[in-house]
This record gives sequence, structure tokens and C-alpha cells, in this order.
Amino acid sequence: MQSLTAAELLHLKQSLDQKRPGYGLPRDLYHDPLVYRAEMDFIWRSGWLFAGHSCQIPRGGEYFLYDVGGDSLIVVRGNDGEVRALYNVCRHRGSIICEAEHGTVKRFICPYHQWTYDLDGRLLLWRGMQDGLDKSQLGLRAAHAREVEGLIFISLAPEPPDFGPAYETLAEAARPQGLRRAKVAKLMNFDVASNWKLVWENNRECYHCNVNHPQYTKANFDHYNADDTIERIATQLAAVTARSEARWADQGLAVTRHETGMTEFPDPENNVWWGANRTPLVDGFVTESLDGKQVAPLMGDYTEAADVGTLRMRMLPNFWEHASCDHSVSVRLTPKGQYNTDIQMTWLVDEKAEEGKDYDLDKLLPFWLYTAEQDWAICVNQQRGVNSRAYTPGPLSTYKEYNLDRFLRWYQLQMQAAIG
Amino acid sequence: MQSLTAAELLHLKQSLDQKRPGYGLPRDLYHDPLVYRAEMDFIWRSGWLFAGHSCQIPRGGEYFLYDVGGDSLIVVRGNDGEVRALYNVCRHRGSIICEAEHGTVKRFICPYHQWTYDLDGRLLLWRGMQDGLDKSQLGLRAAHAREVEGLIFISLAPEPPDFGPAYETLAEAARPQGLRRAKVAKLMNFDVASNWKLVWENNRECYHCNVNHPQYTKANFDHYNADDTIERIATQLAAVTARSEARWADQGLAVTRHETGMTEFPDPENNVWWGANRTPLVDGFVTESLDGKQVAPLMGDYTEAADVGTLRMRMLPNFWEHASCDHSVSVRLTPKGQYNTDIQMTWLVDEKAEEGKDYDLDKLLPFWLYTAEQDWAICVNQQRGVNSRAYTPGPLSTYKEYNLDRFLRWYQLQMQAAIG
Amino acid sequence: MQSLTAAELLHLKQSLDQKRPGYGLPRDLYHDPLVYRAEMDFIWRSGWLFAGHSCQIPRGGEYFLYDVGGDSLIVVRGNDGEVRALYNVCRHRGSIICEAEHGTVKRFICPYHQWTYDLDGRLLLWRGMQDGLDKSQLGLRAAHAREVEGLIFISLAPEPPDFGPAYETLAEAARPQGLRRAKVAKLMNFDVASNWKLVWENNRECYHCNVNHPQYTKANFDHYNADDTIERIATQLAAVTARSEARWADQGLAVTRHETGMTEFPDPENNVWWGANRTPLVDGFVTESLDGKQVAPLMGDYTEAADVGTLRMRMLPNFWEHASCDHSVSVRLTPKGQYNTDIQMTWLVDEKAEEGKDYDLDKLLPFWLYTAEQDWAICVNQQRGVNSRAYTPGPLSTYKEYNLDRFLRWYQLQMQAAIG
Repeated sequence: MQSLTAAELLHLKQSLDQKRPGYGLPRDLYHDPLVYRAEMDFIWRSGWLFAGHSCQIPRGGEYFLYDVGGDSLIVVRGNDGEVRALYNVCRHRGSIICEAEHGTVKRFICPYHQWTYDLDGRLLLWRGMQDGLDKSQLGLRAAHAREVEGLIFISLAPEPPDFGPAYETLAEAARPQGLRRAKVAKLMNFDVASNWKLVWENNRECYHCNVNHPQYTKANFDHYNADDTIERIATQLAAVTARSEARWADQGLAVTRHETGMTEFPDPENNVWWGANRTPLVDGFVTESLDGKQVAPLMGDYTEAADVGTLRMRMLPNFWEHASCDHSVSVRLTPKGQYNTDIQMTWLVDEKAEEGKDYDLDKLLPFWLYTAEQDWAICVNQQRGVNSRAYTPGPLSTYKEYNLDRFLRWYQLQMQAAIG
Repeated sequence: MQSLTAAELLHLKQSLDQKRPGYGLPRDLYHDPLVYRAEMDFIWRSGWLFAGHSCQIPRGGEYFLYDVGGDSLIVVRGNDGEVRALYNVCRHRGSIICEAEHGTVKRFICPYHQWTYDLDGRLLLWRGMQDGLDKSQLGLRAAHAREVEGLIFISLAPEPPDFGPAYETLAEAARPQGLRRAKVAKLMNFDVASNWKLVWENNRECYHCNVNHPQYTKANFDHYNADDTIERIATQLAAVTARSEARWADQGLAVTRHETGMTEFPDPENNVWWGANRTPLVDGFVTESLDGKQVAPLMGDYTEAADVGTLRMRMLPNFWEHASCDHSVSVRLTPKGQYNTDIQMTWLVDEKAEEGKDYDLDKLLPFWLYTAEQDWAICVNQQRGVNSRAYTPGPLSTYKEYNLDRFLRWYQLQMQAAIG
Repeated sequence: MQSLTAAELLHLKQSLDQKRPGYGLPRDLYHDPLVYRAEMDFIWRSGWLFAGHSCQIPRGGEYFLYDVGGDSLIVVRGNDGEVRALYNVCRHRGSIICEAEHGTVKRFICPYHQWTYDLDGRLLLWRGMQDGLDKSQLGLRAAHAREVEGLIFISLAPEPPDFGPAYETLAEAARPQGLRRAKVAKLMNFDVASNWKLVWENNRECYHCNVNHPQYTKANFDHYNADDTIERIATQLAAVTARSEARWADQGLAVTRHETGMTEFPDPENNVWWGANRTPLVDGFVTESLDGKQVAPLMGDYTEAADVGTLRMRMLPNFWEHASCDHSVSVRLTPKGQYNTDIQMTWLVDEKAEEGKDYDLDKLLPFWLYTAEQDWAICVNQQRGVNSRAYTPGPLSTYKEYNLDRFLRWYQLQMQAAIG
């Protein structure tokens, strides 16, 4: 990947400027390999990325790999308890060092010539090298890493944006969910033939939910909007919200969304790319399962299943999570070229829960697995259509697609700012 | 796909100008991705394309999809009986609307947010959209479509070339064949690793037939040319032609080719890209089957199998058809990158014919299936060779490759005219 | 493939100039498609390439195909006994002529229109062509070919570099091995996801041998270097060398390497891209087999297995060979894009040896098959790492990677010289 020429930047700027307020993105932005390269630089290598969960690497020496933008990162916990992100590239001849996706090591030993690095990346041993070289300059290169109540974020940027405000919001929201005391019940990867932005666009509206998500809409209120919230629904929502407030307000676990529709996110004008909120579930649903019944032991600080709704967190450009009283589901996006996105979904349950005894995957998985696969199919269809020369960005519903509009504006502003 | 820069057009012009009269095309024209992009614009998106047969969509609401140049087209019959070609791209967010290759619908409903279009493309319903938008501007975009006696042609050009003369020629030729009263006996697709022009080059000469097409040469005269038509063959041809004339002239079904060799096509200097003629079969062959015997009920206006020869129609850049008294075989080319062509072959028989009773695929298919697969293998071999730097266009036989030369000149002239 | 523009050449020059003495190559040189195109022109189409063995085509009319850089070459022995390399591209329409990888023909007949060429490439027959064309100008295009004591080299260059000095060195070294009186015991192809230069880099050092090649290091001395040759090893090496000298010096078959470490190769400053030497094996190994015991009848001029060590030959950019008293293993590299290399390995034994009686593949193959597959895995790992933006060329060991450094300098000098 090379940096962009002036002519390429100009072309990119013109494509971005063509976006009409309240409408979708011009075709080039889904199609042009140049745009993809620019996005990798200006968004993916500039911001913070969700990499995985703390509970995937609880002990010193445990690591998992995360491949993003052609780079392999080793996300590893040191013996000091710190999580670090090290580039999986030997400083000698460039071989990758860790081949397994997940493992436990005492030190990193390159399989090629056995250059040996400490868990923090420092070069320790290099048999056969001559004097006069400075070993201290040849440690593994590091990306930035932050752990937030069980979630691990990294940044490939030399000077990443301030993580402080995001940290505060997410830490406060995530703490009662107990993700630090969780375990992975299931981890799945999907290769979705769709541009990463289309996956977000799909995520940022529930206009499509009525017909496409029969499971989701049974459990949730947020597919109703100002234009179609009939009185019966408004009454139900008010009742659930009041009950949650009565039970959970003093523990900070009451639902925070009192209207129908999705919580506004992101905030493009103030560049707020992180968010969290607690959202009510329909009466009879204590969790996001097919029948609404609890499917695993309570997590974190929850003492009772009812009326804690679902906790939702999200961070651009690659993370969202839906967490109920008894489990959480995280989604991690990774672009694989302009037409493909790798999507990793991870189901977490309480660390003490035992499969077969305390939970069954047959009950735990379907709600979000169905909903996710319904969405991936939609995204693939949209990609096929926007490839066409006949594609013209259409108007967005102000009732139902305000968050999608926010996402597109955020994207446009980020890219324009980077071009300068 | 982006439009071409001035430098690219200049490079393209130079490649085209390198073609030497009476010789093949320079290597770049089979190899350069830029040439492919230009061809898609200057030929494939500028002319008329064969899409399929009327009998594939006899009733209002029936459609099939045709994917060409990255666009998916819905070829649909309206309740008014008209055939239309609509871009399969929702005007809202760009999703494809029809997923199935073939189907019957009352209206087009986008699977994403259920925007609903009439069979003529008009936007009818859009739940959840705000006031102040003009629904009449948001119908499905349409390409041009023409139905010619059972054949459907479309054009992606904003202002396609005049279809009138082509219509007259094809309609007159096709009418007695009864393609409107036909049914699909078999439809097959081939992914051929060859540039679309090489497929045409192969089609435009029978110099290769002697050794490569043992089935075809048993039934036909047109592989003989001025240089090798021995007296015995000339006598046979004259006899067949005279007999056909005697029997069928008053019904306009007599063979029209009195010499050996292929009918001249195309006419590059006058830009005649369509054609039709009736060609004699060897004595003993009433149809193009392995043994020359009839393999299905008579089609259209034919009242007797003998001496109607075969009807041949063709249109650049993507169609030819061979029709005998009892069946027809159409060929539709669609480029899939510079090195690949999708080829769809469709066998039609009379609409009342029943498989197993009136015809068997075992008898119907082999003649053209063998011949076609022999040709596809040749085209792949040629593609492999022209990829080489050692490829140098060679001289064409004036006896045997005059139609190939005509095709190459037509191609060169079309491209040069488009560059300007 | 098109020639490079001035801007591209400048970019290439800058990438090459970034190489720091004593360090690896900059990332672009493994990654940029432009670099790959330039290498194909400046190295692969400019130098001499190993194609195969004389014993693959012992008789007139026997040929094998070699595909390199998008060109298919027919390497054929004429009835005059000469080996020629003809481009597998018909001069008429460009079809490939030979489809089978290996075969025997009397003449070359193009399958498309049966243009017929003599074994030396002259056009003999062209049915159906008009008068006035000059047949003598339309023979198959030829590359250069040289046969060296059972090894066949070709060059695609119009004016290849002088082969004389390479011929002398290789012929003298290869003659006693009897490759002309050999037969193929096994031929295998590997598709290795690694740039061709990384395969050479791996070949040019034995720093990686200790851990990665347990079989190889048991049999060889050359993984020891000045920094780690303990006295016991020095004593063993001296003993073996002296014994070989005593037994074989008068037949010119004594080992020629008296120090540990690999023989210096290539010589970048003098552009010596060929080489050969005889290297000692560890006491107890008369050949490169798992247990060191003979695995096939003696080859060539050898009259006794002991102390002839192994003969090693190599030629940039695509050939090396390891030959012991009883068998030889050649390696032929062919780039398939910047990230892939086709590697063909061929095991030869004496022509009179019979499988199952005189040798078993189970004994013959493992030593080099294990070692090779260990190396291919390393090369793939390195390719994965150098793809990363985090890859920075590291320092090379002056003790252990001097030959790798020589290879990189040779590469840099060749490329720079070609750019001018």
C-alpha cells in the first residue's frame, strides 16, 4: 500500500464532495480501490479498533492475533498484567513470529532464526549476530493498546486520538456487565461480501427490521419511530421504562432510552465515535433470546434478570456489542478489500458458567445469529446493487435513518479532514 | 469503472492503429485492462445486446435477470405485454431487488426496506419516508428493450443506435421459425477463459472446422471455400440449393446461399452489425443433429423438414443463432473481464413439444454441444497463446478468414470512432 | 505487461536506493506490482534460466513445456540432436500449439488450423493461405537454448549475456556427475506463497538450519560459521577434507571447501551469477539421505561412494542443484506474480537404475523433500511478515548471512544497471 498522490487525493475529494445532504454515498466510495486505500489510512489506521476481549487472554503470556490492513498484530498480556499490541514481524528478516491464532508463550521466538523477544517486545537474544549493532533499537514494533473493563482496543496510529472520553463512557457502561469476569461461549467469523461501510449503514437503522428481523422485533422497541409508534406501543414502552427506573435506578442499571427509535449515534459534528446506552426490552423478554427467557447465569453485578434491558456499546469504525443480563455479543469488523468484510462475533457468558449445565449454545446463539445472518445477506445484496452504474444515492428517511445519516456525515467529515 | 483519461485514450488509439490490414489484432487488445474498460463503454454499453427469448417470460410479471458489465438488469414482461429492461437497483439505498435468476412477481419489492415498484418501474410505495420528496423521480432506471419475433434485445446506451434496419432483417428471417411459439428445452452456461473477441473470431471462420468439428462438417457446406471446393461438392451444393428453391421459394424459405463459404458478415464499412441468412445442409441432413434426422416436431411455419436448411442470425457484439426445421440454438456472449466470457446457449423447440415424448435431449443437444465445446477449447488455447509476448498477429487467409477480417475491421472502426 | 513509464522507473530507482548496506530489502521490493514487472523484464527476461534436464527429452521430437513470465516455451530436441526453445505460439492466430506438458512429435501442428512447423520451428505447411505471403518469415519464434552436460538453460533475451564462463564452470563440475546418463526418478511442483527473492534469500544462508533442518544439519558442515565452529567440528571437517583430498584429488572429485560456512556466491561486483563447488559431508554420510547410506547406484564417473561429498551448482535467478554420489536434486524457480513462486524439484538417478530394484523413492526422497518443505514454510511466513507496514529491513549477520547479502547486492546492482 502506497501513500496517495496529489491527483488521487483530488479525485477522492471530488467523490466525497458529491455526497448530497440527506442522501446516500456516491458509488465511487464503495467501488474505487483508491477510496479503500484512503480509508485504511485515514480511518482504520488513524482511530481506535476493537481487537477482542480481556477474557481471551487472562494470564501473562497469552496472546491472540488480529490481522487488520495487511498487518498481523499480537495482542498479548504481559507478566505485569498489561495488554500490549505488538506487530507480528521479526526485526531481523521480517518473518511473522507467531503462527497460531491463539496461544501461550514465555517469550516470542522467531521460527526463522530464533531471535527472541520478551513479552513486552524487547529483543533479548540474537545468536550469531556481530558486535556493534544496537539491540535496544530492534524490539518488536508496538501499536497502542487499551483495556476497558474487559474490552481491548488498539490503535495503529503513531499518535492516536485521545481515548479518555471514550474510556470513561465505555468503562462506566461496561463495568456492571462484568466482562472482565466472563468467558467466551462461542466465537464465529463471517466473510461477508460487502464493503465495511454498508455493514455499518445496516447497523445504523432499524427501518429494515420489520420484515427482515422477526426475532429481533419481537424483543425490541427501537424499530418503532416517530412516524409509526402507535399508542399501544407507547404505553408498553412507558410501562417498561418506569418499571426499570423503579427497580434499577439506584444501581445505575435502569434503561436510559425513553422514546422509540434508536439512540442517536454517532455525533459527526463533535466527532463522537463511541457510545453506550441501556435500552428496554419488550415485556416478557428478560434477555435477547428467542423466547425472551434467560439462557445463562446472570453476569456481572446483575442480581435479577428483569428490567435491566440490554446494554449497547459501539465504537467507530469496527465495534458494537449487545449485552443482556445473562450474556453479551460483540461484533468486530475488519475490511478485507473494498468488497469484503470479515466479521467476528463473540458470545460471552459469566466465567463460572459451564456449557451443558448452566447454558446451551442451542438457546444462547440463535437470537443474534439469526439476526446477524439476516443482516449479512442484506449487505451482500446492497453491495451487488451499488456496484451498478445505475446506482444513484437515494433520499434517507428522516424518521428512520437519522443514525445512518449521522454515520455517513461522520465518514465524510473524517475523510475530508484527513485530505485537508 | 471510471471513464478514460486522455493519456489512456491515446494509448488505446495507438494500439488500435497498430493493426495491420489483413492481419490479426495486436496483443494489447486482448490483454490490457484499459482496452477491456474501453470496450465495455464503446461497444457493450453503446450497442444492442441479446438478452434472451420471449418464451422465457411469456406472461405479465415474469422476468429473468441479465448481468452485463457489472449491472444486473431485470428483463420483465409488463401486464401490458411489453418487455422492459429495468436496472435491478433500488433507488433508495441501492440494494438489488430481485435475487432469483428467474421469477414471477406482481410488483417489485426491495427486500431491504420494501420500497415497491410497478412492473414498469414506477415507485408505488415507500413506507416511512417523509413528505417533500418527489416519488415520480425515483422509479427504477430503465434500459432500452426491443422484442423481435421471440428474441429480446436491450441497450444500455442513453441513445442507442437505430434498431430499425436490424429489426426488419431479423423479424423477417425469424418469423417463420416461430420463436414466439417456442419453449426452452435446455439452457446452459459456459465460463470460457477467453476474451470475447476471440470467441467471435472463432465464430467468423470455418477454416478450423475440418479437423475440429467432425459433426458440423458432416452436415454443412460452408467450410468449403473457393480454394478447396472440388467438383463433387459443387455439384452437391447446386443440387441441394436447386431443390430448396423449387420447394420453398414461394414461401420465402429457400436457402439463400449459392456459393460455398460463409455468408459475408459483418459489413464494417457500412456498420452493419446484424444479419440473417438461410444456408443449405448436406443431402441427408434435414436438421443439425448427429445423424441429420429430425429430433423434434417442426417449428413455426415449416410444413416439411426437407430442404429448409438452417436459418442463421447474428448480431454484434453478443448474439448468434442456428435454427433448423425442428429446433433452434442461440448463443449469448457476456464478457467477464478481459480473459473470460460467459456463454449462454439455449435450445428452443416448439412450445407444444413434450420432452420424452416429442423430443429427447440425448438427440437434441449433441450436435451443437459438441461443436460448441470444441470451439471453447480452441478459444482457451488461443487466449493462452496471445498472452505471450511472442505473439505477433499473423496473416489471415483471404479464402477462409474474410469474415474474421470483417469482424476485426468492424471492431477497429467502432473503437476508433468512439475515441474520436 | 507493458514497459515502464519514466515515473515508474523513478519510483523503482528510489525503492532500490533505499536499501541500506548490510540490511535486508525495503518492503516495496516485495510488494509493489511495478517492481515485479520490472524484475520480469530486467532479470528474468534478461538472463539465463534453467529449464530442465537433457534426460527429459533424450530423443529427437521429445519436448517439455516451460511456462515463464506468461510465455509458454517448447523445449524440444531436434532430429539433429540439438535442444531448442520455441515459443508455443502459432504465427497465424496465436493459439498455443502444444497442449500436453510433455510429449513426442514428428512436427508441430497447431490444433486450430493445422499450420505445421518443423522441429526447428520452420513453417512447413499452411493449407488454405493465399499466394504472396512469405512463409520463411513465419516460423515459430525462438529463445536461446544451451545444453550443459545434461542441464538445459534458456534465455528470453534478444541478446543474452555471454554464457561462456558459466558453461565452463558448470560443464566441468557437472561432467563427472553423469547427468547426461541419468533419468528422472521423481519430479514435483510446489506452489509457494512467497516472492521469488525470499526463496533465494532462504537458500543463501544456513543461519536458519540449526532449528529448522534437523535432517540437513546431521549430514552437513556448512551451517557452522566462524562464530560457532567449535574445535570438535573443525577437527572433523579437516579429517573429512583430507581424506577426500587423498582419495579423489587426482580425479578432480575432491571436496573444495576447507572452511565451515557456505561457499561465497554470488559475486555481485563482478556479476558472477553462476557457481559450483564440492562440499564435504559429515563422517558416516556418503550421500544426502536420512541415514547417510547410499540410496541408489553410483552415478557418472564415481567408482566409490565415500568422500566425494556433494556437488553443488547454482545459477541466478532460478537454479540450484545438490548432487551426491548416487542421486541429484535440482530446483527450478519460476515467479507467478509477486507473492507466488512455482518451485519444481527433480530427483535424478543413473539411467540404468530401476525403481523397486535399485532404488526406492521412500529412501531417495525424504532428505531433500523434508528440507525443502521446511524452507517453503519459512518463506511463506516471511512473505506474510514483509507484507506488513511494520516491516523494517533488519541487519544481516556478517558471520552467517554473507551470501544473502551478496544476493541482495547482486539484485540491487542488476536492477539499478537496467534502469540506467
